[in-house]
Amino acid sequence: MLIVKKFGGTSVADKERIFNVARRCIEDYKKGNEVVVVLSAMGKQTDVLLAQAKEINPNASKRELDMLLTTGEQISVSLMAMAMDSLGVPAVSLNAYQVAMHTTSVYGNARLKRIDTERIHNELESKKIVIVTGFQGVNKFDDYTTLGRGGSDTTAVALAAALHADACEIYTDVDGVFTADPRIVKSARKLDEITYDEMLELASLGAGVLHNRSVEMAKKYGVQLVVRSSLNNTEGTVVKEEVKMEKMLVSGVACDKNAARIAVIGLEDQPGVAFKLFNHLARHNVNVDIILQSVGRDGTKDISFTVKEDDLEEAVAVLERHREGSLKCQKIDVEREVAKVSIVGAGMMSNAGVAAKMFEALYDVGVNIKMISTSEIRVTVLIDEIHVEKAMNAIHEKFLLSQM
Amino acid sequence: MLIVKKFGGTSVADKERIFNVARRCIEDYKKGNEVVVVLSAMGKQTDVLLAQAKEINPNASKRELDMLLTTGEQISVSLMAMAMDSLGVPAVSLNAYQVAMHTTSVYGNARLKRIDTERIHNELESKKIVIVTGFQGVNKFDDYTTLGRGGSDTTAVALAAALHADACEIYTDVDGVFTADPRIVKSARKLDEITYDEMLELASLGAGVLHNRSVEMAKKYGVQLVVRSSLNNTEGTVVKEEVKMEKMLVSGVACDKNAARIAVIGLEDQPGVAFKLFNHLARHNVNVDIILQSVGRDGTKDISFTVKEDDLEEAVAVLERHREGSLKCQKIDVEREVAKVSIVGAGMMSNAGVAAKMFEALYDVGVNIKMISTSEIRVTVLIDEIHVEKAMNAIHEKFLLSQM
Repeated sequence: MLIVKKFGGTSVADKERIFNVARRCIEDYKKGNEVVVVLSAMGKQTDVLLAQAKEINPNASKRELDMLLTTGEQISVSLMAMAMDSLGVPAVSLNAYQVAMHTTSVYGNARLKRIDTERIHNELESKKIVIVTGFQGVNKFDDYTTLGRGGSDTTAVALAAALHADACEIYTDVDGVFTADPRIVKSARKLDEITYDEMLELASLGAGVLHNRSVEMAKKYGVQLVVRSSLNNTEGTVVKEEVKMEKMLVSGVACDKNAARIAVIGLEDQPGVAFKLFNHLARHNVNVDIILQSVGRDGTKDISFTVKEDDLEEAVAVLERHREGSLKCQKIDVEREVAKVSIVGAGMMSNAGVAAKMFEALYDVGVNIKMISTSEIRVTVLIDEIHVEKAMNAIHEKFLLSQM
Repeated sequence: MLIVKKFGGTSVADKERIFNVARRCIEDYKKGNEVVVVLSAMGKQTDVLLAQAKEINPNASKRELDMLLTTGEQISVSLMAMAMDSLGVPAVSLNAYQVAMHTTSVYGNARLKRIDTERIHNELESKKIVIVTGFQGVNKFDDYTTLGRGGSDTTAVALAAALHADACEIYTDVDGVFTADPRIVKSARKLDEITYDEMLELASLGAGVLHNRSVEMAKKYGVQLVVRSSLNNTEGTVVKEEVKMEKMLVSGVACDKNAARIAVIGLEDQPGVAFKLFNHLARHNVNVDIILQSVGRDGTKDISFTVKEDDLEEAVAVLERHREGSLKCQKIDVEREVAKVSIVGAGMMSNAGVAAKMFEALYDVGVNIKMISTSEIRVTVLIDEIHVEKAMNAIHEKFLLSQM
């Protein structure tokens, strides 16, 4: 078997943890597997480097930031190779140049284009564990690039795809993917399996286990992922195309508190108004989520939508700027203390009544629904942020997620 | 003019110093010069990384150590580019891969073989200051290598040669090359000029300003070096092939306290004994310096020689191991508290009496000479370490080195 194993920064934060990871990889190696390890920078190393850069130049170019940040993973992979070596197992560390991880040109947020596998295969053939820097690549100018948030997951999945690996294991500090955040829902249960699509919905809803790009890539190339804990030997959650038939309707409940609602009230009721509004926002890279349009009084209409709370100020500023021009309206209302709560499940597609059951759960505990959005495998509601815990527990209970 | 400027680790140890170096380079750039900057790792960064490695694996492979250490320079060059950028001057950092600094395969102590200049020339043409990682290279396996002690000086000289630079400036924390160590000889004077050969003799004698390999390379490729201070605007010392005619006989007095004397007494007086002795030492990488052979009593002979004090234990162990076998002798004597004091000067070659004058100076202050060694441009004596200061001042005075 060829196994790709990815460990995040906290898993290699100090000597003891580096040796833990080393032993874990050696276990697989000693069973006769070929092992490729992908690492992030140690602990808070990336933050330390960013702070150093900020001190020198708060507006440092992304090209130089990437040149700086990529040292972080290079340090962790070389130390890991030393650790394995001291445990008597031959290992070699490789950075993005040495592997040849080709990316697009965009610094700070590049996409992997192509990975050369020759060097890795050669090292594996000479019976070495191969340790690869996550998060980084090289563009056509021969410059370092970084892959943006969750980049090391993407590196691992891309490597697994390029190497036709038999398994791709993403190690994290939780036991796997849960039916809900265990910090909010006490009875939350670890899932044994989940589909790529469900994982994508959960990730975008702030479940925070895997980054969307890595899941998208895994789906595209059919890489079966395992999300598991680096702290214990629990089996983890398998992310794959299809899960077993007896699968329940709903896989999990997720919440996202990084949400805010904007209501633009009293817009002229004529064609092109919605287009203009969202076009202005898109031009300023403000992503809009749930949208609701309703007819107002006196031939006007109201448009409400949610944005990330981080983008709220920018969004309002953009709207205010165009208020006297192309975007005549009576009022712009803002609500910050709201959250999105969602149920996700591939089984939903073929089952009516799932949304109704969720709304019933919310009604039971007296939570008012402000907005609703659905996809084939997801139902999302916007509620007041203070009700999140109550709402999630009620939904979790209603779908008996803890009892499967 | 194309100028290569090299700054050591202390010159880029913190934000303030990084900006000092940045401003210094920008000064040259604004005069219309093309500027290439070579940097070492910041302050004690290399030591910090080595300590981290040692904690993980005290016998870490040199390949992985180089992978680890090369991050040090990459951090300093990227931060420097950010600093210059914030001062409004376009700059780009390049590491050994990006430049393409080809070296031999030996990790930890590689030699530069070839430097590609295309990328650097392109960046210079687009009016950027180019900042290059010192100390590092890439070997034929696409692995990082480091150049060993003084490696960043070598990088700077090699770059200056490859780019046909008009000047190569090595910045340090002293004003230039002195007639003697100013901490020992108060009246020591900075030299305006010195030849490559003199510099080589001084460096190997522990003057510690430039590393031998960089001077050898400068001589080979005719790169004119300037050694100057990063702390002030003093002119510094020019190192070149020939210096002006009115040049004095002796350029400087140097001392090396890292010396010990071994006397092997009562060896059989027959052919091949000296060969065997030094062959054993050479096989264990013990370098021998001054050698003295004398006839002993009863058909035996004595051989004395100096080694680096660091190598003393190893040398004695090697000799003891062969004492009963191929190396029969009566006694092995060791003297640790000795030092080498040397005068160096290209003018010596054509002038008799220089050595005698030095011996007179030592006689004047009652310092006993234990051994003598000479080259065309150097006279070295071995004396007791406690007399070093007295000896150096007397010699310095005798040759009126402070009055030129």
